[in-house]
Amino acid sequence: MGRWEPDARGRLASAALELYSERGYEQTTVAEIAKRAGLTERTFFRHYADKREVLFAGAGDLQELFVQAVEGAPESAVPVEALTAGLDAVCEVFVDRREYARRRHAVIAANAELRERELIKLASMSAALAAALRRRGVAEPAASLAAEAGIAVFKVGFERWIAADEEREMAQVVRESLDGLRTVARGR
Amino acid sequence: MGRWEPDARGRLASAALELYSERGYEQTTVAEIAKRAGLTERTFFRHYADKREVLFAGAGDLQELFVQAVEGAPESAVPVEALTAGLDAVCEVFVDRREYARRRHAVIAANAELRERELIKLASMSAALAAALRRRGVAEPAASLAAEAGIAVFKVGFERWIAADEEREMAQVVRESLDGLRTVARGR
Repeated sequence: MGRWEPDARGRLASAALELYSERGYEQTTVAEIAKRAGLTERTFFRHYADKREVLFAGAGDLQELFVQAVEGAPESAVPVEALTAGLDAVCEVFVDRREYARRRHAVIAANAELRERELIKLASMSAALAAALRRRGVAEPAASLAAEAGIAVFKVGFERWIAADEEREMAQVVRESLDGLRTVARGR
Repeated sequence: MGRWEPDARGRLASAALELYSERGYEQTTVAEIAKRAGLTERTFFRHYADKREVLFAGAGDLQELFVQAVEGAPESAVPVEALTAGLDAVCEVFVDRREYARRRHAVIAANAELRERELIKLASMSAALAAALRRRGVAEPAASLAAEAGIAVFKVGFERWIAADEEREMAQVVRESLDGLRTVARGR
């Protein structure tokens, strides 16, 4: 990754999302992405394995951040408190990224293969969170149930946060979703 | 579907699961499934679109059953009560099917494409449940959160029910998972 390509990775990601939004994910080639970014295909493949990976390159870091915040919660924290710490950490990543998130989401929603990949990402995060909770001493099935609930809160909160009329910060919307889940679970 | 092929559909499903378990899903052909069932390929394709569909043919009925039970819950039922009615209805389908469910699950767990298909099935059920809850007058995000929670309970409960050492009925295990989620959500 030479000095003559400042922020090549970011430029490629922006160019890809632009093209996917303009002409559709399927209709976009790696050659076009590289051209739009003013770079070569060779440079593209130094940063991303394929055009799909551009959209999911952050998934591993996001999962790691979520897991580390859950693990790093105070020892006294019950599962829902540890998850709250994880959700807060994840929300920080999205600050000032709402427009990017909206466009990425629209691209994914329009393509079955990408929707599948997104489901796999969430399932992987859920499994990693359950493992983190078990390491905190939470027994099964509570660990898996808490992890699934955490991912549900993240997913529903995220989708509300990117809604056209939503202006509040993601952290606030996600906290509201968590409260919503707790109210549902409480019953009446 | 002629009289000379009694329960062709069931025989094909059994033969397919046997072969997937014995030699792996990828290594099994439709011709082999038909042969094992004592039927022709042509008959196979009258019942199933492809070899994957054999494993997911019941998904639509299961979702419909879940949705109808949620919709049919008493008007006074809060979301978690409507979901409980749905979960109970779904559990009845699995009575006496634990061995089949175990073998199917093992086949799916061993193949990435099938695991994806299973995730899509669950996401579709969640969306259908959220729609059913909205028709019951539940607002968003509560409807989506309750639906995701219901699917989480089903998924975690199902996986516990098919565990090697589990002997209780699915309805009981799933109820326990629902209680587990409610305890997690309660906090302390």
